[in-house]
Parts: sequence; structure tokens; C-alpha cells
Amino acid sequence: MPTTDPTEAGHWLRLALIPGISPGALRALLAEFGSPEHVLAASRPALRKLVLAEIATVIADGGNAQSAQVALAWLAEPDNYIVTLADADYPQLLLQTTDPPPLLYVKGRLDLLNRPALAIVGSRNASAQGSDNATEFARALSAAGITVVSGLALGIDSAAHRGGLTGVGSSVALVGTGLDVVYPARNKTLAHELAAKGALVSEFPLGTPPLAANFPRRNRLISGMSLGCLVVEAALQSGSLITARFANEQGREVFALPGSIHSPLAKGCHALIKQGAKLVDDANDILDELKLPARAKLARESPELDGDEASLLEHLGHSPCALDVLCSRAQVGAAEAAGLLLKLELKGLVESLPGGRYQRVR
Amino acid sequence: MPTTDPTEAGHWLRLALIPGISPGALRALLAEFGSPEHVLAASRPALRKLVLAEIATVIADGGNAQSAQVALAWLAEPDNYIVTLADADYPQLLLQTTDPPPLLYVKGRLDLLNRPALAIVGSRNASAQGSDNATEFARALSAAGITVVSGLALGIDSAAHRGGLTGVGSSVALVGTGLDVVYPARNKTLAHELAAKGALVSEFPLGTPPLAANFPRRNRLISGMSLGCLVVEAALQSGSLITARFANEQGREVFALPGSIHSPLAKGCHALIKQGAKLVDDANDILDELKLPARAKLARESPELDGDEASLLEHLGHSPCALDVLCSRAQVGAAEAAGLLLKLELKGLVESLPGGRYQRVR
Repeated sequence: MPTTDPTEAGHWLRLALIPGISPGALRALLAEFGSPEHVLAASRPALRKLVLAEIATVIADGGNAQSAQVALAWLAEPDNYIVTLADADYPQLLLQTTDPPPLLYVKGRLDLLNRPALAIVGSRNASAQGSDNATEFARALSAAGITVVSGLALGIDSAAHRGGLTGVGSSVALVGTGLDVVYPARNKTLAHELAAKGALVSEFPLGTPPLAANFPRRNRLISGMSLGCLVVEAALQSGSLITARFANEQGREVFALPGSIHSPLAKGCHALIKQGAKLVDDANDILDELKLPARAKLARESPELDGDEASLLEHLGHSPCALDVLCSRAQVGAAEAAGLLLKLELKGLVESLPGGRYQRVR
Repeated sequence: MPTTDPTEAGHWLRLALIPGISPGALRALLAEFGSPEHVLAASRPALRKLVLAEIATVIADGGNAQSAQVALAWLAEPDNYIVTLADADYPQLLLQTTDPPPLLYVKGRLDLLNRPALAIVGSRNASAQGSDNATEFARALSAAGITVVSGLALGIDSAAHRGGLTGVGSSVALVGTGLDVVYPARNKTLAHELAAKGALVSEFPLGTPPLAANFPRRNRLISGMSLGCLVVEAALQSGSLITARFANEQGREVFALPGSIHSPLAKGCHALIKQGAKLVDDANDILDELKLPARAKLARESPELDGDEASLLEHLGHSPCALDVLCSRAQVGAAEAAGLLLKLELKGLVESLPGGRYQRVR
């Protein structure tokens, strides 16, 4: 449950909103004293062992009551939530990352914070095809029950949110400003739609304007609450690659969509693939890799077989079979059988095993 | 040296041209008796221990003298060669493969058979952009001294040969017919150019028409005499993937050029990359991977740096340096330094090391 008790929320806010207090310092205080209420009740000398003198003084004086009051007024409005490290609604995947924010401001559906999620990120200056790709992948993943997480930027982010909102997985935007600030302004309608059908999430206090330094920090949360991160279009040296880097450091799968070798917006994706990201050209690639339940899988086309291939496949069982045995079963020559087996293997229907044996896999 | 002595060449040809004799059987005979001349002098009972009765009879009767005579007439023409397993000119990389052909018919430059070579293969129905890409990669690799090997097919193969012929590396076509047959006919001019400035190579007897069964066999040689195999455009289930499969089995690097996820001709390349092929979007990727001498490398652009990045890079040496040390050297905050370091890392100039240390790499 989120922190719906205004008194308890107030304690968290009084601490979290102290200027200059770091998430690490706040976590250390909570570890020492047990709860925000106990931190606020601690003596200045006891606090001084963990935090700088000026912060200890503010805490001993009751924390930042004024800013907390503003946030509580915001919290009182419908569909606004504050979710703290202590809440079951806090994204559990984020807890596994280093430096999780002590509290998150949430507007919209709380239940989306702990669903299987995939980050989809990419260039703000996306091509039309890139945006279409982001929307189509997001639509397919959302239809399969995956929540699409992105950063509400123009271009790929917006396209991904739009696709995510069409399905049961819906979409969550991690924003780099206070939740009462919409940035970029052109995404006002999309932000409203996310608040109504998905969710907007921020770790930054209300009123925080768009500051360059906050965006890489926010990117860390986009990957941190997701099982993996798909980069759709990204130039070399773009912010999306930073998100992918965070994803990799957090132990999340990194996926990238390839493109023309002549497109600057494919270069970043290609660089990621060279470094070990998974190339994807089908949303099923992602579902396969994340090993999500079969019910979530999308229909995949069966490969077409010609008569000879179908016939050979009929004669090959699901247990290993030597080539000569297969040839005698199917009454074909070794050369012809080897050719057909290669084709069947390329279609993903047959596996070649050590010792020249073959096995049907589908 | 190739087999220029017509008598010796005649012995090889009398054996190799016996209908139904396999390369393996011929190699076994040579291993037993030492040379073709000694094989031809062996008794029928001694031969019978290694080959079928009818083949032993033909050998004991002097082999296929009639076909050998035709081949010797061809060999007498300028720039025609027969290279046997016993010759130093035989492609040494092919010797490392299973089932190397006992002899190769060669038309053109023998010296190209033992140069560092890269196979470039792909669709016969290539897109205009795909053909341009093949030509450009082949041109760059050939300029760096790499011989471009392909199969004289329409589409990517032809484009690769054309690019290869422009540079010092030149180009070699491994064909699936006898060398006196040009297939496809539309490539007659290209075949003549290869004979004059590159080389045409076949393991098939003169007069062999284009037979479907011979092409996968020929593909094995394309990859077998190359250090690696680059697939430029390929549909799923195409012959190029068979060549890539051979390359992989032969321990050669497989490279693939990515493309739009909506292009059927990129699907085969993407499938290869998913299976472990190296994505390349620059000819230097291939030179790097093959670890060819630095002199062969092409000029690579230096990344552009802004003032802050250049300044931080100046303060970071080529030995590992902790973040706080770097911050104090460069007089910047930790957050700013971390952001700059990420950008420098993405530009390939800085490496992040365990323990939060950084090192300049270029």
C-alpha cells in the first residue's frame, strides 16, 4: 500500500525535501532509527553521526515542514500518490538497484509499478519509421501484458507510450521534472492520457523544472524498474545509450533495433549490438529472451515448407536420428537429404547434433 | 608451384576425372601410394582395399585418359592452371577444412589463392542499396589488401567482385560449373575481368553445367579459403546462410550487415547476428576483428569533443584513475565528471574499470 496516511507521508516528506539531503543519507538515517518519525525525534548529536551538521540541525528542527505541506496538498488530490521505500507498491525491481530513490511521486495507476515492464527509449529526433516501430513494438508488448516504460520525451519515448497505452500492459512515464510540471509542453495531452490510463512517476519534488543534470538520473529509473531496455533509434553518443548502459549495469537485458548502415539514428543501436545487446526485429524476440509465460507470446508464423521438406520432416522424429537412417526412411540420397536438412534447420525446425545426427525441434 | 608438368598434371587428372571417385577416396589412395603416378601403377588387388571394384578397375586401366586429355589441352592455354593438394599454391586455408578438393582449376592470378581473403556473399535479388554496400565494403577491404572471394552470382556476389577488382586485394570467384562454362551468362564480362585481373576457381571438371547440387558444395569453398564471411543481404532460408553456416563450422568469423526490420533481405542477416555473427556497419569492424596488420587499417574518424570533454580527457591519463582524483585534478564536480566520462566512454575514448576507476584508451 502507498503512504496514504497524511501524517506518515508528512514525516517522509519533511525528511526527503530537506535541501541537500542525499538518498543515501536518508536511507542511512532510516536504517539507524527505523522510521521517518523516529528520525525526526532523534537528537541532533545522534543525527550528526550520520549526516552533515546543517542537515542534522534541520532534521532536529522538524525537517522541511513548508515543502511537505505543499506536497501533502498535492497528495490529497485524486490519483496522486507518494510511494516510499517502505511501501509494498514501491517498484520491487528498483529496490535491487544501487541508490533507489526514498520516495516516488506517482500520478495514475499504482498497480503498474510492479508489472513486468520493458523500457523503450530512443531518439527525440526519431524518423517517422522509427516512431512507427516504437509504437508497434510497444503495442505488441502491451498486448502481451508487458508495461511499456519510457521518459515522456518527444520522438521514440512518446511513440512508445502511445503504443503501450493501447493494450493491457499500458505505459508508465518516468519524468525528469516535478509531477506538476509537464515537460516537454508539447506532450501535455499524452501526459494527461498517461495519468488517466497509465502512470506518471517522478523522484523529483513538485515544482522541479527540467534540469539537464536530472535526466541521466531519471534514465537510471527507467531501466531500473524494467526487465529490459529496448533502444529503437539512437545516434552515437545519445542519452538513450546512457539508459542502455544503466540497464546493463543493473543486470537488465539490452535490446536494440537494427537499421540501415547509412542511418545516423541506427549507429547507436549498432554500437550496442556490437557490445552485446540483443538484436531484435520482432517483438517475440523480446518475449522469448525475457522468458515470459507462454500465454503472453504472440502468434508467430509457421515457416512455409515445400513438398520435399515436409516429407523429410515427416520422416524425422523428435529424437536424434543419423543421416543414413533418415535417408533410408525417406528414400532420398544423402546429398539431397543434407540439403533439405540445412533448409529445415534454417527455418528453425531441425537441429543438427554432434556426430552427424539430426532432430526435429518443432 | 602449380602442376605445370603436363605428365604429372595428366596423372592427377586421370584419377580425379574417374566418374564416381570421391575426393575422400582419392586422398586415401594418395596417402597409401604416395603420388598419382604410383596410384596408377598399383595393382588392382591393392587398389581394391581402398576403393570400389569398378573404380579399382578403371585406375588399373590407366584412369580416365580421355577426359584428362581434354583438360590438358585447356591447361596448355595461357593463364590456365591446375593446382593440386600437393602444390604450394593450393589455398592453405582450404587444407584446414574437411574434404578439400584434390585439385582446383584456376584461370587468372594464382598468387591470389593464398592472400588474406574475405568472402562477401548475399542475395541474387539484391536491392540497389545492398549492391552498393557490397561494392563499397569490397572496395575498402581490397584497398586494405584483402582479397574479396565470392561466387559470381548476380546481385551481391557480382557487386562484391566489382568492388574487389578496384583494389590491390582484387577478387576471386569460386564457381559452381566447369571453368569453360560461364554461369550466369549475364556475368560474362565480369568473368573475363576476373580472369584478367583476379581469378576464377572451380573444383568441377571442364564442361560441368550449372547443377543445383554443386552450389552448396561450392559455397563450402568460398568460406573455406577465406578468413571470414560477410553476408550483405540475405532472405531467411537463402543460400548465403548456408555459406555462413559453413564458415562457422570451418571456424571462420561470420559478419553480417544489418538493415531495416521491414526488409525481407535483412532478415537473414539479422538471424545470423542473433546466432552470434558480428554486426558490421563499417569495413574497419572487419579489419579489427580479423586482427590484420595495422598498416591495412583504414582511416577512422576521430570523435568530436566539446570543450568540457576535451578538458576532462586531458586530465585523465592512460593509467587507471579514481573518480575523486580526476575531479580534483580537473576541478569539476562528481556528477558533471560522471556525465562527461559516460560521453567519452560512448565515444570510445575512455574505459570504466572495476572499482569506479577510469582510464583513457585512445
